[in-house]
Amino acid sequence: MADSWANSEEAAGSEGGAAAGADLYLALAGGGGRRTRLMSALREAIRSGRLAPGTRLPPYRSLAADLGIARNTVAAAYAELVEEGWLTARQGSGTRVARRTAAMPVERSAPTPIDRTAHPARLGPSRLRHDLQPSSPNAAAFPRADWVASTRRAMAAAPNDAFGVGDPRGRPELRHAVAEYLSRARGVRADPGRIVITTGFAHGLHLLADALDGPIAMEAYSLPYHRELLRDKGVRTLPISVDTHGAVVDELRDSPARAVLLTPAHQYPTGGPLHPERRVAVVDWIRSTEAFLLEDDYDGEFRYDREPVGALQGLDPDRIVYLGSVSKSLSPALRVGWMVLPDTLVDRVLAVKEDREMWVSVIAELTLADFLSGGAYDRHLRRTRITYRRRRALLVETLARRAPHIRVTGIAAGLHAVLELPTGTEESTLRAARRLGLAVDGLHRYRHPDATTPARDGLVIGYGTPADHAFGPALEALCAALPQPDR
Amino acid sequence: MADSWANSEEAAGSEGGAAAGADLYLALAGGGGRRTRLMSALREAIRSGRLAPGTRLPPYRSLAADLGIARNTVAAAYAELVEEGWLTARQGSGTRVARRTAAMPVERSAPTPIDRTAHPARLGPSRLRHDLQPSSPNAAAFPRADWVASTRRAMAAAPNDAFGVGDPRGRPELRHAVAEYLSRARGVRADPGRIVITTGFAHGLHLLADALDGPIAMEAYSLPYHRELLRDKGVRTLPISVDTHGAVVDELRDSPARAVLLTPAHQYPTGGPLHPERRVAVVDWIRSTEAFLLEDDYDGEFRYDREPVGALQGLDPDRIVYLGSVSKSLSPALRVGWMVLPDTLVDRVLAVKEDREMWVSVIAELTLADFLSGGAYDRHLRRTRITYRRRRALLVETLARRAPHIRVTGIAAGLHAVLELPTGTEESTLRAARRLGLAVDGLHRYRHPDATTPARDGLVIGYGTPADHAFGPALEALCAALPQPDR
Repeated sequence: MADSWANSEEAAGSEGGAAAGADLYLALAGGGGRRTRLMSALREAIRSGRLAPGTRLPPYRSLAADLGIARNTVAAAYAELVEEGWLTARQGSGTRVARRTAAMPVERSAPTPIDRTAHPARLGPSRLRHDLQPSSPNAAAFPRADWVASTRRAMAAAPNDAFGVGDPRGRPELRHAVAEYLSRARGVRADPGRIVITTGFAHGLHLLADALDGPIAMEAYSLPYHRELLRDKGVRTLPISVDTHGAVVDELRDSPARAVLLTPAHQYPTGGPLHPERRVAVVDWIRSTEAFLLEDDYDGEFRYDREPVGALQGLDPDRIVYLGSVSKSLSPALRVGWMVLPDTLVDRVLAVKEDREMWVSVIAELTLADFLSGGAYDRHLRRTRITYRRRRALLVETLARRAPHIRVTGIAAGLHAVLELPTGTEESTLRAARRLGLAVDGLHRYRHPDATTPARDGLVIGYGTPADHAFGPALEALCAALPQPDR
Repeated sequence: MADSWANSEEAAGSEGGAAAGADLYLALAGGGGRRTRLMSALREAIRSGRLAPGTRLPPYRSLAADLGIARNTVAAAYAELVEEGWLTARQGSGTRVARRTAAMPVERSAPTPIDRTAHPARLGPSRLRHDLQPSSPNAAAFPRADWVASTRRAMAAAPNDAFGVGDPRGRPELRHAVAEYLSRARGVRADPGRIVITTGFAHGLHLLADALDGPIAMEAYSLPYHRELLRDKGVRTLPISVDTHGAVVDELRDSPARAVLLTPAHQYPTGGPLHPERRVAVVDWIRSTEAFLLEDDYDGEFRYDREPVGALQGLDPDRIVYLGSVSKSLSPALRVGWMVLPDTLVDRVLAVKEDREMWVSVIAELTLADFLSGGAYDRHLRRTRITYRRRRALLVETLARRAPHIRVTGIAAGLHAVLELPTGTEESTLRAARRLGLAVDGLHRYRHPDATTPARDGLVIGYGTPADHAFGPALEALCAALPQPDR
């Protein structure tokens, strides 16, 4: 037996015998039947270059005798490898390793593993020990047992056709549960026929970008990912300024925008709700210009000081598209969101939506339907609101004590706050944070490149993400990274 | 109490009292606390037009007294409705219905429900009683109990970070399980680092359309949806002929295509496996032209007369992209598929893939990983193979008896067969089928519009979809729809 082979892992793990026939050494290792193992061994020998192209294999009778297995097992293995293109069989010339397999690269000693176990854009290199980046909820708080219970009930109740091709709007069970929930909890005017289930906010924005015409106005401070998504779709975005009362919707007056994307309940990322007068003014604008408003209600469930502001959508369901998801309330890993569409947009969006792909898993839909209508969602929100309220208090209290010169805003709601920094200190603060192993976002990255108002320095602090034990140390690192007060 | 109000459903279902104050009648119906119910009643009154824009509301003290609820409850409700834009409050002029709310449409008597409970393209109108359209497995066979058990185990075993933002390639647990399964069952050379989890084949094709350059050759008979997807992405598709040995890959020799999309295990829809010599020839072509081969292994698990042909990918993992999914083997409703990429394409595909959206539900991923590695998938395949083999036998036997003049092909594998029809009879046969309430596909719709070979008449019969009790009657309808033999 050749050394290189005898020493290989495969030979070491061999269950079968090794066969020597006409220069052919084979170890029938691994699982499966004899034919399967013989085929694997032959493929491996060809791949590794041990069996060169054109090499004639022993007649199946000899190999069968050598390996102590049935002749027709070997014959079947040869025939299948011929069919797969590894071998060729010609009358009079026997069975040979296929000629063109020559060009196959000799097996690399070890395939290069590409390590992307963590999501690079979010977690960064492993030396980042603390995560205060916004936009993820506490992964440790996911209600696993309740989710399994909802899965069990949903699978027992589902009709057979749930496992067929399905409805591009999503399962009716979930659309009914979402309509009921949004109407009750967010004042949304929703009927199941106007709801489309998505894999999240961005999926909805994708569809709307194709279904709507013309440029879209958006807040000058907003998620860069949304701007980029629209840009990649060929949609022009026009910034409107943001102040302490939210988006300055008066700027829409002379805008060529045909739609406006807003975060009325809690401006992202600066943190205030849209002022009541501006709510009325923007509804005026969409009516007088026949434009649409896209309401991104990304964290409407989390408000700490009093009840949440109701959704803007209730003011004009015929011109406002309401978009939400469970990415903040449960987990971004679920990939379930929804749009409540004006009647006039339902057909346009469905025409754009792929009929068969990029849908949400029906099992996730049915499970979430049970989770919503059975009360588990409300219970989960109550529990997590308490956790986040405590974290917010700890953040505010710690900063008041350790960095009283830094103003914290946007804390009435949601899972993040904004720390205002002295002008010109954002970049050095981010550098200091990185040195301390703290992942945190600066305000600059949220600013629309065409924004005209002066850029503001600040940090966007997500207090949802860390596990409980990790939150205190993350705050310590934050305080250490902040600029010192002027003297 | 005004008649129009007293007679309304809301008044009839009222739990609270009805209040008369300053022309304001309110029934506090529905669930929630008093403030919530009051707010709902006010919003409803404004929406319905009962409370006209500019109408002054009673002072909160009077309304509180009328309704028998606390003053600050009413005050809070007013304040929130001001914040939401329904009401305005000005010093000295009291609380009024917001002016611009005037433009709100008066509530339609009943919102028009848009009924799309069934997927229109697949099931058609409800008078279709029999479904022999190809491409869906038997929905009734979904292994619900095993799936719930896998969910339970997966949720118990998942690390917390599974519920965070995650890896754009998909969870490592699933990529490992898929690599192990594909290597064992399909002869695919897969390591988890080169696998990307998708929502199905078309999601993979979307990504590849953006990651690859130049036109893509595809079989002249193939799924129209895939052609349309590529066309919508701006990718030119070039048909190559299909005969009884599968795609005529020799036609690639002078083709400007930079990639070729094939269904080597079971040509879709005509049904044969790619001939061994053509397997070798197409690998030759991708090597000599540095093109890529996209291997659509959509039903490789279902082969009835002997073991499945191994995947082509094993012949050249550096130039062949392997694509598969559970849409045929488990359910299209799960929306889980995979790509095994050449090393050189991993970064290009990940650069195209949205970082944060259009991912598969992590819970579906973790559950499927358990389902694959715990053996439930193999058990399910064994069970369903028996069912489908029986159906295939019944199809062949029924046609031999009832329509011996019709040739059936493509029955060695998969969930569908092709019935060859006399030239010029496809359209009339489809019409006859529709009259009998039978949904079935003609061969013409699969033909590439640029194909040069003559069009063939035929039916593509999916025998996977119907429930067991419905299969016999569907076959009867099929036989009745077929053209009579020439005399």
